[in-house]
Amino acid sequence: MSAPTPSVDPELLRARAYLSRVAEPPAAALAAFVDHVGPVEAAERIRRGAVPDVVRSATGARRTVDRVDADLEAAAATGARLLVPEDADWPRWAFAAYPAAGTRELGAPLALWVRGPLRLGEVAERAVAIVGARAATGYGVHIASDMAGGLAAAGATVVSGAAFGIDAAAHRGSLASDGPTLAVLACGIDRAYPAAHSELLDRIAATGLVVSEYPPGAVPARHRFLVRNRLIAGIGAGTVVVEAGLRSGAQRTAADARALGRILMAVPGPVTSGTSAGCHELVRNGALLVTRPEEVLEAVGRLGVDLAVEPGRPTRPTDRLDPDQAAVHDALPSRAARDARWLAMEAGLPLETVRTGLLDLERLGMAEYRDGLWQRSLPSR
Amino acid sequence: MSAPTPSVDPELLRARAYLSRVAEPPAAALAAFVDHVGPVEAAERIRRGAVPDVVRSATGARRTVDRVDADLEAAAATGARLLVPEDADWPRWAFAAYPAAGTRELGAPLALWVRGPLRLGEVAERAVAIVGARAATGYGVHIASDMAGGLAAAGATVVSGAAFGIDAAAHRGSLASDGPTLAVLACGIDRAYPAAHSELLDRIAATGLVVSEYPPGAVPARHRFLVRNRLIAGIGAGTVVVEAGLRSGAQRTAADARALGRILMAVPGPVTSGTSAGCHELVRNGALLVTRPEEVLEAVGRLGVDLAVEPGRPTRPTDRLDPDQAAVHDALPSRAARDARWLAMEAGLPLETVRTGLLDLERLGMAEYRDGLWQRSLPSR
Repeated sequence: MSAPTPSVDPELLRARAYLSRVAEPPAAALAAFVDHVGPVEAAERIRRGAVPDVVRSATGARRTVDRVDADLEAAAATGARLLVPEDADWPRWAFAAYPAAGTRELGAPLALWVRGPLRLGEVAERAVAIVGARAATGYGVHIASDMAGGLAAAGATVVSGAAFGIDAAAHRGSLASDGPTLAVLACGIDRAYPAAHSELLDRIAATGLVVSEYPPGAVPARHRFLVRNRLIAGIGAGTVVVEAGLRSGAQRTAADARALGRILMAVPGPVTSGTSAGCHELVRNGALLVTRPEEVLEAVGRLGVDLAVEPGRPTRPTDRLDPDQAAVHDALPSRAARDARWLAMEAGLPLETVRTGLLDLERLGMAEYRDGLWQRSLPSR
Repeated sequence: MSAPTPSVDPELLRARAYLSRVAEPPAAALAAFVDHVGPVEAAERIRRGAVPDVVRSATGARRTVDRVDADLEAAAATGARLLVPEDADWPRWAFAAYPAAGTRELGAPLALWVRGPLRLGEVAERAVAIVGARAATGYGVHIASDMAGGLAAAGATVVSGAAFGIDAAAHRGSLASDGPTLAVLACGIDRAYPAAHSELLDRIAATGLVVSEYPPGAVPARHRFLVRNRLIAGIGAGTVVVEAGLRSGAQRTAADARALGRILMAVPGPVTSGTSAGCHELVRNGALLVTRPEEVLEAVGRLGVDLAVEPGRPTRPTDRLDPDQAAVHDALPSRAARDARWLAMEAGLPLETVRTGLLDLERLGMAEYRDGLWQRSLPSR
């Protein structure tokens, strides 16, 4: 499971290994350059310094460091391999939103060092991130573990950051349900951080996947945790925050999830608990309050899969519809499935009106309800 | 404090006393008839049976019962008086939305029996209802008491139903902050229900107000609690639910608050607590999550007062606006103030876009922010 995918050209793989070290993530300018000229030419031109200024400034410090062989060997020594965008297993869907996302720099990773049998491209579509406070309470640990267990039992892959507290509880809850789980590190794939979770990381890698965009040997510097969080938010179709202070890394992951258009969810707790204050603030700012795995699954649905459904050509017997029904029908996407809240926002109608309209449309054969989400019905053939 | 307001004509007062007993609330058809022909003629025609069928069916059973003198005497004996819509102290604003509200019958009261020194017409504009489970937990009682104390300290009047659990905690928290509080009963004003709260009701009546639309002697029949809840929801500018099961009276009050266009709020709790499950469900269906009195005050703002602001005639230099700004401006009411969430729903735009647009409009002098709410700027004079 540690060998590079045979289908990827070795020269391309070596170029990506070089690129993964030459700039500090997130390297949006470099990613754009690589997209433009291709990884092999990009690596060659960076080595020569023949690149645009924004790329030069991002790569200048490390462009002469060539540790490609050492990195690939170090990774292989720990059972890891380099997953590149040219690999069939690359989660294209997960990172598609990155270049366009918001004001913060959310560059897509240039490559990912991965350890474990899980196929990232397959699981990303049904992955859910669970993140939260390191200094979690017993309540938070219990909820994170239960939530992860329920999601894993339903076939979802739980993504988190292997930190103390909520992260570890999420991984453990998933493993306890025999669900493969995915940990994204803020250091090299060959390091165990935190050290106390060395055994947990081995358990994750045995059935799931440990992932890092940092080259082997990279230390878990403080800023890398925040940068890493955009991958946790991006790999999942949605992010659930279980216990978070008002200013916390989990809040940052939540902001990334929002910027990437992912479904942001938060679990409430006692208002007397400071570790739930961040969750409550998220809900006050539009995150979906969730209390059970079923509610998470309903919200996330089969989002990734449904996005791939072929576009429908509705027959448009819309004359029959009253203005509210027509507004709901207009808001219903044909390529994607959405929940009623999203449709209410889109249509500018009260939630109850949208729900009534959806049921009307369903009865008329113009809308379909599946796994908690609505979409336009495909024309019958 | 128990004498009828001198300014109200005694014949009119007696007619209203008769009307308050002749039909079981909520009596929307009767209220419409009284609005149409006036209370004195309405009472006279009901006595004769010369009324439309809908009114006859509502009043047929009791129309020959004349207990006007006995009711007024029974009320006076407990220090209560009859407050009528013709009284300057009638909370017109509070009941204005009733005839138009939703599908359930939410008739405005025909008169209110009141005990205590509080001027209902004055306090309704800055009243907040706090309701919740009778079988509250220690957590819920603590939160309800703290919330009520904080609201009372800020000058808001706490409205509730004097029941065990959350209701009583809300009244007591308000009294502990030396705030007058308002209890709406589901029985006659001369009865103490629950009996164990007899002393609490006396304390409420000493500085605040005990209110009932039922005539003296009326028993607290089961259905009257649900009917009474529409008054709790209506007297307040907003309703805060603190602990409620999934099917509970508090949920019904919440539904009434929503139907009446009041701001509906809920306090979260542990997801492991069944008494918080109703609160979480409310938030999932659009209620505002609140954790502190400040958040309630921010949401409710000076809603009642702001609603009385005269309509603005904006100068409409809307050519300067980009599509998002224009959409936000279109959604901004000129007669009322709304929060950003409401505007996002109205405009069909993401919350962040609306917030950015509002700040742009404020800078252009086209929107005003006061007490947490936005409205269109009045043209400068």
